[in-house]
Amino acid sequence: MLLHLCTWPEVETYLNQSTGIIMPIGSTEQHGPTGLIGTDAICAEAIAKGVGDRTETLVGPTINVGMALHHTAFPGSMSLQPSTLILVIKDYLTYLAQAGFTKFFFINGHGGNIATVKAAFSEVYTHLAQTNIAPKGEVTCQLANWFMCRSVYQKAKELYGDEEGSHATPSEVALTQYVYPDFIKTAPLSPEVARGHRITTPTEFRRNYPDGRMGSNPALATPEHGKEFYDLAVEELSEQYLKFIGRN
Amino acid sequence: MLLHLCTWPEVETYLNQSTGIIMPIGSTEQHGPTGLIGTDAICAEAIAKGVGDRTETLVGPTINVGMALHHTAFPGSMSLQPSTLILVIKDYLTYLAQAGFTKFFFINGHGGNIATVKAAFSEVYTHLAQTNIAPKGEVTCQLANWFMCRSVYQKAKELYGDEEGSHATPSEVALTQYVYPDFIKTAPLSPEVARGHRITTPTEFRRNYPDGRMGSNPALATPEHGKEFYDLAVEELSEQYLKFIGRN
Amino acid sequence: MLLHLCTWPEVETYLNQSTGIIMPIGSTEQHGPTGLIGTDAICAEAIAKGVGDRTETLVGPTINVGMALHHTAFPGSMSLQPSTLILVIKDYLTYLAQAGFTKFFFINGHGGNIATVKAAFSEVYTHLAQTNIAPKGEVTCQLANWFMCRSVYQKAKELYGDEEGSHATPSEVALTQYVYPDFIKTAPLSPEVARGHRITTPTEFRRNYPDGRMGSNPALATPEHGKEFYDLAVEELSEQYLKFIGRN
Amino acid sequence: MLLHLCTWPEVETYLNQSTGIIMPIGSTEQHGPTGLIGTDAICAEAIAKGVGDRTETLVGPTINVGMALHHTAFPGSMSLQPSTLILVIKDYLTYLAQAGFTKFFFINGHGGNIATVKAAFSEVYTHLAQTNIAPKGEVTCQLANWFMCRSVYQKAKELYGDEEGSHATPSEVALTQYVYPDFIKTAPLSPEVARGHRITTPTEFRRNYPDGRMGSNPALATPEHGKEFYDLAVEELSEQYLKFIGRN
Amino acid sequence: MLLHLCTWPEVETYLNQSTGIIMPIGSTEQHGPTGLIGTDAICAEAIAKGVGDRTETLVGPTINVGMALHHTAFPGSMSLQPSTLILVIKDYLTYLAQAGFTKFFFINGHGGNIATVKAAFSEVYTHLAQTNIAPKGEVTCQLANWFMCRSVYQKAKELYGDEEGSHATPSEVALTQYVYPDFIKTAPLSPEVARGHRITTPTEFRRNYPDGRMGSNPALATPEHGKEFYDLAVEELSEQYLKFIGRN
Amino acid sequence: MLLHLCTWPEVETYLNQSTGIIMPIGSTEQHGPTGLIGTDAICAEAIAKGVGDRTETLVGPTINVGMALHHTAFPGSMSLQPSTLILVIKDYLTYLAQAGFTKFFFINGHGGNIATVKAAFSEVYTHLAQTNIAPKGEVTCQLANWFMCRSVYQKAKELYGDEEGSHATPSEVALTQYVYPDFIKTAPLSPEVARGHRITTPTEFRRNYPDGRMGSNPALATPEHGKEFYDLAVEELSEQYLKFIGRN
Repeated sequence: MLLHLCTWPEVETYLNQSTGIIMPIGSTEQHGPTGLIGTDAICAEAIAKGVGDRTETLVGPTINVGMALHHTAFPGSMSLQPSTLILVIKDYLTYLAQAGFTKFFFINGHGGNIATVKAAFSEVYTHLAQTNIAPKGEVTCQLANWFMCRSVYQKAKELYGDEEGSHATPSEVALTQYVYPDFIKTAPLSPEVARGHRITTPTEFRRNYPDGRMGSNPALATPEHGKEFYDLAVEELSEQYLKFIGRN
Repeated sequence: MLLHLCTWPEVETYLNQSTGIIMPIGSTEQHGPTGLIGTDAICAEAIAKGVGDRTETLVGPTINVGMALHHTAFPGSMSLQPSTLILVIKDYLTYLAQAGFTKFFFINGHGGNIATVKAAFSEVYTHLAQTNIAPKGEVTCQLANWFMCRSVYQKAKELYGDEEGSHATPSEVALTQYVYPDFIKTAPLSPEVARGHRITTPTEFRRNYPDGRMGSNPALATPEHGKEFYDLAVEELSEQYLKFIGRN
Repeated sequence: MLLHLCTWPEVETYLNQSTGIIMPIGSTEQHGPTGLIGTDAICAEAIAKGVGDRTETLVGPTINVGMALHHTAFPGSMSLQPSTLILVIKDYLTYLAQAGFTKFFFINGHGGNIATVKAAFSEVYTHLAQTNIAPKGEVTCQLANWFMCRSVYQKAKELYGDEEGSHATPSEVALTQYVYPDFIKTAPLSPEVARGHRITTPTEFRRNYPDGRMGSNPALATPEHGKEFYDLAVEELSEQYLKFIGRN
Repeated sequence: MLLHLCTWPEVETYLNQSTGIIMPIGSTEQHGPTGLIGTDAICAEAIAKGVGDRTETLVGPTINVGMALHHTAFPGSMSLQPSTLILVIKDYLTYLAQAGFTKFFFINGHGGNIATVKAAFSEVYTHLAQTNIAPKGEVTCQLANWFMCRSVYQKAKELYGDEEGSHATPSEVALTQYVYPDFIKTAPLSPEVARGHRITTPTEFRRNYPDGRMGSNPALATPEHGKEFYDLAVEELSEQYLKFIGRN
Repeated sequence: MLLHLCTWPEVETYLNQSTGIIMPIGSTEQHGPTGLIGTDAICAEAIAKGVGDRTETLVGPTINVGMALHHTAFPGSMSLQPSTLILVIKDYLTYLAQAGFTKFFFINGHGGNIATVKAAFSEVYTHLAQTNIAPKGEVTCQLANWFMCRSVYQKAKELYGDEEGSHATPSEVALTQYVYPDFIKTAPLSPEVARGHRITTPTEFRRNYPDGRMGSNPALATPEHGKEFYDLAVEELSEQYLKFIGRN
Repeated sequence: MLLHLCTWPEVETYLNQSTGIIMPIGSTEQHGPTGLIGTDAICAEAIAKGVGDRTETLVGPTINVGMALHHTAFPGSMSLQPSTLILVIKDYLTYLAQAGFTKFFFINGHGGNIATVKAAFSEVYTHLAQTNIAPKGEVTCQLANWFMCRSVYQKAKELYGDEEGSHATPSEVALTQYVYPDFIKTAPLSPEVARGHRITTPTEFRRNYPDGRMGSNPALATPEHGKEFYDLAVEELSEQYLKFIGRN
């Protein structure tokens, strides 16, 4: 149930049953020599659709450019400034809240978004409290990072151990291979891979992580793994969503 | 050639051949009783991919929420404030320009975006001129509205005459039917349809256009028409793009 | 009836009869070798006064610096950033709306303002809807470009044909000559004049249009023509205004 | 020498002789039962033209809406937010500085502008220092309030004593009578007039100063006085300007 | 009674007795060869505590970085942009006003803050009037500059005459010596000291005032003088505060 | 070595030895029935001074109001909007970076700041990269949360077990008791304490956590414990700082 594929009377009907909505948020940034630039958006969107189907919940449009300033020394990476992303989330939620949505469940594919999205939630709450936009009462938001699902994390450790790393990971690459089996990329990957550096400026990031990977070996990824991750994430996040929505 | 489905080394290679990129921009807003809320984003994205394929050009991520404040009295409609959309476009272009892109060809699916996107271009030019972000020289942008292509316009007039209208048009609905044949919606449409009112506030808009259509009869749309529109738009915009890119 | 030349009790009295107001908006930018830098503000202000007199309507202060970033490579040109102009229009309307004005009729002298002013209107509508500023009900705005009046356009074509061009036009120059007969400037004008280039960055604009004219021959202008344009614009815009104000 | 009545080649020539410019700034706000709403803009503009003529200096467009939030409980009063006015001044100076102007002499007609204009100057200096906009070297600004000229102040005390007051003063009303002799307003003025209250919110301001005057008796104003104030202000500010411009 | 050293139930109790609060604001900027960088914050905070004790009033957290852009060519100086400081003050007051505070008495230690703080008050009033944040009625603010207290000024003239100067003054240095007797600094001070230059850009400021002093001889300061200034300021500002708080 | 207690020549000298600086950041928010509203600022400031002394490092002014929107339903709580806090940090770092500082070590006392501070760092890096503000090369920042020090965490678990909780914790209360032994507050604390709720809006927060505590028993705190926490945090963060500063 994608919002994009509904008509407005269908949304009106939906709101009689539920005021919850799933919001996918990803990023457009380098994912190492073989990872797709859209990895984070692809994963978030696919899983959000899965959770939407399973829980009969509407899924909003994907925020496909997130906060990835630290990756911008690699060509093809894009980013919003944190303060822009805050405004975007504020605008996204304002008109949905005005229409009656009250429960926003963000499914996130990118660690770099977490800080800004949390900041945005606080700013949204204040904005809505100081105006009379939301007619159905208090709006609450939840941020759910698919790659931090317990089941996903355990599966990744089981399959890849230390080679999971923390960026351009085999788990996320596997998931994109499952979603886009025609776009599996290969490239020579040096067996040694940088890890453990703090994330600071774009140029320092590229100096520290010259091929873009952070401690990962994405060559281990397979589409079959991708399906496993997809199933685990959809299941775990569906439960989280239902708990969130039922909490009121 | 979608940016989302490339790796960063592929983008690096691409930049040796071309510094042009196609940016689809749509909207998430009501399109009458039978039109999809994502109509404008779906059309812009599909045509952008077509132009990208035909001209071997990279296609960036779709801006799928645009400037649709006047539609926000209908549930499911979303919008950025114009000033937010200006910031978004500024951020989008900053890091692509920094990577070496100099020619941005926006394929737009929503009339309501035009004013703000033009304003954004001016603001981007000034921003880039006052900093040293763009290493490959002056960045220029072009806005191309697929629904204003001469060939598309003529075809719509030929097929629908006055019933084309100006929002939730059969031509755009047809195009979404072509792209998403499984999501063709039907609903009773009154033969009389409002037309000719100025666009002002959201509430006045809904008062004037109670079912969301502006002078259109989307029941005339067919997926076959959609393919025709798609082909015409891709051909005409490909030519426009090549002219734009070759202008330097 | 200029707001600037009224007292506040006079405005209070006026509001008992009408809640409409005319807002002139121009620009401060190069207008070729012989055109005045204030051309767009001068024209908008003069015509606004004429419409105000004819329709017994209050005329607000002229916004005399508009969105003219593309002209800023010529000395003497000034501009607001689009996002600043949006804030300015928002502030201008907020306190007038609070005082009870509900119908804002912008008479515009500069094509470059159109996009930003339209964006501003949307942002104003949202702002007013989310607060309780406007006590007399919904505020609506209309943008009227004097140079796009049908009668003006036809007269310009009749007098100048292709030499009307699109910037530093004989019609606008003529109007300033009528308003300021002591400030008629002359300068050698090459018979060949650039035309047809897209408007992008300031530097490219000046490269393409080295003397600032866009396809025009302002040497054809006379103060007598100016009076004709003035009369036509005042008549046509007065009708538009009365239609606008009576629409509620 | 008004910028609005020059061509761009004339500005180019001017810049070879001088990089100074005079910027009038006023306000659009209630001035008591008989004072014009445009008083502050009218005075600043008239005196700026006088100083421009006497010192052969270019005069920029008048900022005719300033910071007058405290007056906005009276109909017809307008205001920019301080943060908007800062942006406006930043934009105004950016493109003039880029063209080569380095000395900005603001002639101000409204006490309420002083704080924000000073804040804006600081923000402009920083902005220009962090970019490479200004090609002719360091930009400096000066704020000159005509009503605080020593000679003006003494003349007002001499003519009106305590009845000069601090808003809707006979001196400023006189100056507008001199400039617009056809717009001299009369109204019954109570002999008792409020004075001495601090300026806080708009509603408290109107409660404290019910007819808008602050300790003043504008009935004492005459156009002849207005001419005296005009001459004194032009002379004193011309000297200030020449000192400012010669300081480098 | 420092807010920082209270619990929230204590604040709740306090609000039953008083809705006034004292807000110290200083700066972090060079104060000549011997003055502490924190001078303005130290003075404002100490005096605010004194006034709070004497009048049994709550004292909020000190704004210790203010508007000091003109000092930023000296190492260790910090500043907020004026537009940032406006936002900071708006945020500070929003939640205190929401909790029921209505009277904000700013004790200021830095002349450079005055313009921006006044601008901020206007913006706060408007913001609160357009929302429903403040439940206990209209909020008002007062700015009190300790160094402009009549008694302080007279004492400084009496002790230092012309050598008081206007920045890095012996009076403010003395007050910091009284508060921090262990941090009395000495350095050779040239007997000649710059004075009388206008304040413009940071680089011009440092060129004009090479050691940071503006006409002052801080070597005259003693901790004993500091105590005198402290006592005078506390007494005079306590009276001002009580008058302010009782005004409603 | 507090910046506030230095002169500018001392800072100039310091910069020859080190370009590192410690920036304390806290919050002003409710800390339960017995915790001080300034707890987070007090802790951050005290520990920062300790680390500064131990490592001979300059300590900047404390940001004492942070991001605490979720606490604002309790009187006395204050907060910056996240977007304001981003601007504040940007301004703070701009002029210190311009003076030559390159290593900013933030010692943080409030979990609610983490997201926004991280977002701010990204925005600062981009800002500095797009301008030429920082003369000594690339600026980097590190965020160190004293309460997340391994040694502190272990000690708190050892002393308090589950009663440590996550807000108004005995560990932070103890630290304030050590710093301000004269301000130890007592109040009846119900043995049952709320825990485990997600943090959303201010009103929901207060509903969920009616006395402000989150799972904690601050009655266990003693000043002696406070000294232990202080010593552990200073030692661990001093090591972190030295590693950070030596990393280049």
